[in-house]
This record gives sequence, C-alpha cells and structure tokens, in this order.
Amino acid sequence: MRMLLTPGPVEVPFDVSIRGSMRMISHRGPEFSSLYSDLLHQLSRLFEVEEPPIPIPGSGTGALDALCGNLISPGDRVISISCGFFGERFREIASRCGASLEIIDVPWGESLEVHHLLEALERFPNARAILLTHNETSTGVLNPVEDLAGSVPKDGPLILLDAVSSAGAMPCLPERWGIDGVAASSQKGLMAPPGVGLVWLSKRAWSRAQEVRCPSYSMDLKLYKKNLTDAPETPYTPPVSLYAQLLKGVEIILSSGKEEWWKSRARISRALCAAVEAMGLDLLVKSPNRRSPGLTAIKMPPNLANGVRSSLKGMGLQVAGGQGGLKDSLIRIAHYTDMDWPEVCMIIGSLWRALNDLGVRADVGCALETANKIMSER
Amino acid sequence: MRMLLTPGPVEVPFDVSIRGSMRMISHRGPEFSSLYSDLLHQLSRLFEVEEPPIPIPGSGTGALDALCGNLISPGDRVISISCGFFGERFREIASRCGASLEIIDVPWGESLEVHHLLEALERFPNARAILLTHNETSTGVLNPVEDLAGSVPKDGPLILLDAVSSAGAMPCLPERWGIDGVAASSQKGLMAPPGVGLVWLSKRAWSRAQEVRCPSYSMDLKLYKKNLTDAPETPYTPPVSLYAQLLKGVEIILSSGKEEWWKSRARISRALCAAVEAMGLDLLVKSPNRRSPGLTAIKMPPNLANGVRSSLKGMGLQVAGGQGGLKDSLIRIAHYTDMDWPEVCMIIGSLWRALNDLGVRADVGCALETANKIMSER
Repeated sequence: MRMLLTPGPVEVPFDVSIRGSMRMISHRGPEFSSLYSDLLHQLSRLFEVEEPPIPIPGSGTGALDALCGNLISPGDRVISISCGFFGERFREIASRCGASLEIIDVPWGESLEVHHLLEALERFPNARAILLTHNETSTGVLNPVEDLAGSVPKDGPLILLDAVSSAGAMPCLPERWGIDGVAASSQKGLMAPPGVGLVWLSKRAWSRAQEVRCPSYSMDLKLYKKNLTDAPETPYTPPVSLYAQLLKGVEIILSSGKEEWWKSRARISRALCAAVEAMGLDLLVKSPNRRSPGLTAIKMPPNLANGVRSSLKGMGLQVAGGQGGLKDSLIRIAHYTDMDWPEVCMIIGSLWRALNDLGVRADVGCALETANKIMSER
Repeated sequence: MRMLLTPGPVEVPFDVSIRGSMRMISHRGPEFSSLYSDLLHQLSRLFEVEEPPIPIPGSGTGALDALCGNLISPGDRVISISCGFFGERFREIASRCGASLEIIDVPWGESLEVHHLLEALERFPNARAILLTHNETSTGVLNPVEDLAGSVPKDGPLILLDAVSSAGAMPCLPERWGIDGVAASSQKGLMAPPGVGLVWLSKRAWSRAQEVRCPSYSMDLKLYKKNLTDAPETPYTPPVSLYAQLLKGVEIILSSGKEEWWKSRARISRALCAAVEAMGLDLLVKSPNRRSPGLTAIKMPPNLANGVRSSLKGMGLQVAGGQGGLKDSLIRIAHYTDMDWPEVCMIIGSLWRALNDLGVRADVGCALETANKIMSER
C-alpha cells in the first residue's frame, strides 16, 4: 500500500487519473468547447454561483495572483488577517500588486474570528479589500468564512478568499456568503493533478476589475470573461487534459451529492481527531468547530515528528510535517479526497504503530472504537 | 484516421500521453526532485545552455508574461519588431509590465531582418530590451534569430525571444546565439500537452532581473532559481504529471539526436512546400529560407479556405485557418512532431482530394514525386 496523505497534490482517483492520457484535442473547436462548457457548468453547481469560476493554467498560488492582479491597484489599502503560512503568502502576493497592507496576525493554530475583522474595519475604514484564508493548510484551521463575510457591510471592502485547499472538500459558497473573490486549485479537494487554478468574482468584483489594469496578460480575467458564451473559448491555450481531469473530479463530488460528500469529509475529520486524542496526542487546533474537514494537524511528542513521518513513509503513507515555526513538532494528514472507513483504519493503525515503534504506547483498540462511533453517525 | 495538425496543442505521442495518468507524487520529496532534476538537465541539453530553462505552470502566453515580468520595469524603453499575430501579443504583454514601446511592423508573411533591427537600434539607442519572435505561427515565418542577435552589440538591449512555437522542432540555442531571455511551451515542438511554460535567462538577464520587481508572485523566477540545487524544488505546487509528460517529449527528441530531429522536421517542411507548389498553390512565405520547419501556411484559392478546412476535418485531419486579416485566405498545417513519409502522403493526398472535391484540379502524382525526392535527401 502506498498513499499520498500530504496536503496536495493528493492521491488522484483512478477515473480522474486515466483522463490524463486522453488523446489531445484542439482548444479551438467544438470538442474542447463542450468540455470547457461542462467544466464551467459543473463548477458553478459546486460553488452554487450564477457566473462560473474561471479555470486558468497555474497553481493555487497562480490563482491567488490572478485574484489580486485583477482586483488590487497600486496603493489600494488592503487588510490582511492571517493565521498561518498561506495567509502570509496571500499577503505577499497582494503586496506584489502594490497593495498598501494593513496586517493583523492571529497565532498559528487559532482561527480568524469576527472580532478580528470588526477591529480591522474600525481601524482601517477606507480599506478596499480584505484577504481571508478559508482552510489554513499550515495549521489545519477552518476559518468561519460565512460569519466573517456576514460581518462586513455590503458596501465595505471586497472580501477575497483563499479557498485553494477548501474547494471541493467542504462548503465554499461565495455568492451565498457574500464573498467577492475566490481562488482555488485543482490538486486538493477537487482531486485532480496540479496545474489548474480557479478564480471566481462577484458582480461587484467584476465591476472593480474594470478599473484595475492587470499587470499580467495571461492572468487578465477580463480576457477570459469575453468568451464565456454558449460555445466558450479560452483566450490562449489551456491545459486541455488537466481540464478534463478536473471535470471528472468535480463530477465525482456532484454525483455523490455535494452536501453528503462534505458531511462525509467532516465525519472523517472528526473520527480521526477523536482517535488521535484517544491515543493521548494533542491536536494543534483546540476548538473542535475550527478544525478543518480536509486536514488534521497533530502535535507530536517532543522530537518525534520526523521519526513518525519517516516510519509512516516506510509503511507507504506519506504525510506532511509542520510549516514555519512548527516544522519539527507537527504531522499533518490530508483527507480531502474519496476516503472512508478503510482509510481511517489505515491511518489510525499506522500512526499507532509508528508511535509504538518509537516507544510511545497507546490503546489502538480504543482509538478505533472511538473513530467507529463517529463514522457510524449518519 | 484522426490527426491534429493545428499549431498546438499537437497530437501527443503515445509514450508522452500515457504518463498523464501517472500515479500522483508529492512535490516535496525525492521522487519529484529526481523527475524535476532530469527535466532541468534534459532541457539544458536541448537548448545547449549552462543554466537550465525553468518550467513554470502555464501556457506559452504565461511564459512570455513571466519573461517580461521579470525583465521589464515600468517605463523601460522596449523595441518590438513584429511580423504577425504573436509578435503583437508579445508587445501587448510587455506593455502590461509598463514598457514604453517602440514599434516596428513588418508585413505579415515577411520576416524580421537584420536591417530592421539596425534601424531600430539607431532610432532608439537607449532601449533596454528588444522583443523578437522566433517562429511566427500566424504566418509560418521562421525569423533568422541567430543573425538578428549577432547584429546587436554585446552591451546593447536585452534580446527577448518568443520561442513558444519553435523550441523542440528547430534549433533554439540562446546561449550560443547571444539571446538573453527565451519563453517556450510544452504543447508544440516539445510534444507534450499544454500547461507548462519554459523561461530561460542569460547571466546578463538574471542580473537585470535582480533590479526588477516582478508584479506576480507565481511568476517570479528569482523564487524558482533559489531551489535549483542538486535536489531541486519548486516554490509552490507544480503541474507534476505535465512535467513528467514534458520530460518524455524532450527525451524523444534527444534520443533521436537533436540535430537529426531538426533536420528531419526541416525536410518535411521542404517536402510539403514543394508538393503544395507542385499542386499550383502559393505559400504565404515567399522566401524559402524563411519558411518555418514547424508550420506551413498555404494560400487557398479565393473563398475556398473554409471549405478545404472542413473537407479535411471530414477526413479526420484538423488544420488551422489564418489569423487576423488572413483568417479566410489561408490554411496552416503544423508539423512540429514525430512525423515522417506516411504523414507527408496523408497530408498531400488529403489536401489534393479536398481541393479536387471543390473543383480545383491538381496533379497529385507529381506532388508526391516532388515530395519524395526531397524526403529521400539525407
């Protein structure tokens, strides 16, 4: 058994993987138009939005670049509230577009809360945008984006969301929540290989984009929007085979019923968290309702993080360590994808064995029973 | 039979295609490092350069964006000499970075010549960069880039080259020729699916890049250069499976012997051109030594371009029409990839039949005999 449990790229489901070998088609013709049209339609269903999220060639980082490049003009005051590594990267990306940044740092492992946002709005009333991270992959925090967005006045700053590691694996409903811009990516909750970014803008954001000169031609979303007709086209060559793979990933989620899919991911997360705690380990994120349904960050006993990771690697399971200051004290296990009870057993049993081999005793039976109780809740 | 003969994406060879279904690997680990290291090494061999071309997620347009974004600061005077659609796009991309453009337009179908460049250098002595297109896909012109670069003084403007549709299918030797920056892409002469751009900088260009603030985080080549060590890493998630496919495409070229590969592509081009002329058709590019080894643009009898294209499509062969003002008077046939005599017969015989069905008579035997003579030269 060999399984990628790192926070992206993820283990790509077979039906998605196999499309990577598709016979190539021209991107100027009815076959691609039909693929692209399906992709736009299914993505719109997934995000419950009227205008489709736009796929662009690139990584999640590229999608964040496109989001900022289309909505931030040099000198714009931008509030960045960050609780981890990816919040800081979002900030760096905005600063490249000339944003005048107002920074609020929340300790790693904690979440962005409404009071942080209200303080920021009071301190910087003329901000033009707020940068938020949905699922902070470096710590396994799920930020309460719906509540956060709900606390910003309708005529307030644009709310820009990094949903790179949330989209697909958990609800991300920008139109319903009142978000203005979203960046996502193919290789995490959408279960495709890396190489496609997604960018969605609200009507208000599209009108802001008209005023902004995007410094990059290939990331100018206005060029994309022109051709989103019945027979949609891209302004330049798209990564055709990756689009086909991404479409399949989205279809897997939609055909399972997206609400049920999201509930299942959250259930797996709760089961793993409970099992980990039953084995006497601590989770980085204290508050249960701020734990990511897609990724769990587990504190390791002193100096054991690397040993546990390499022991798991020896069994075939590849997990991530911490990032930044947490590099040597965490392991992070991603579970964005099509997992169920067998994978939960695999993770718990293997983690238990790795700890056991390193002299850390725990009751694996109790851990599995705890997990099973949660997995049996429907 | 069904075959893509459009100027990219191309028909992907089977051995390249199949790697698109590879089992996903983490981009932080020895497996990816080894793949990436091989890719950098083989690309360096192909371009005969000391420092490797850098693969980035994106299209050829994205690679051009990265080239300009890393080397052009707002206000820099930049000379753009264009002979087609893609020369104009390169110009537009540079203008997004704030270039102050000095424009020279050469009629479509003609090539950029040393005298154009010398005039430009005299008129704009303080230019910081010159934009050149290697293979102008809209017209099938191959510009004499080695001669052009040789005519620019060593301390003159940086020479930036759009090699998006040349790399792989014809010699592109930037270090030997004295080019400073090159943008290329995966989906044409390198025979992989679209989604990877390549950017190469000379030592002089790297030192210029130090002074430029790249407006895009994901396209900042300095972030890439940091980790090009023995176990190279990318600054953010790369399109892993596309890198594996691109590596295979490059390996096919190198294992055939790149000089021999290039000679074969050029021979196919000459054979097709001669056959087309033997059928009484005109080529857009008058000068034989300015015709692209990768793509042939054929003038169609009045009002027949669309008919011929759709007739070829009916036989399974997908070719392109003209671009811009040439939209309805040309067909363009790409032959960047692993073709030989059978494909030449297929193209000539099918084109002859399409014309014949539309009432245009030609001697197909003579066309094939003419082509055969050229294909037999070794």
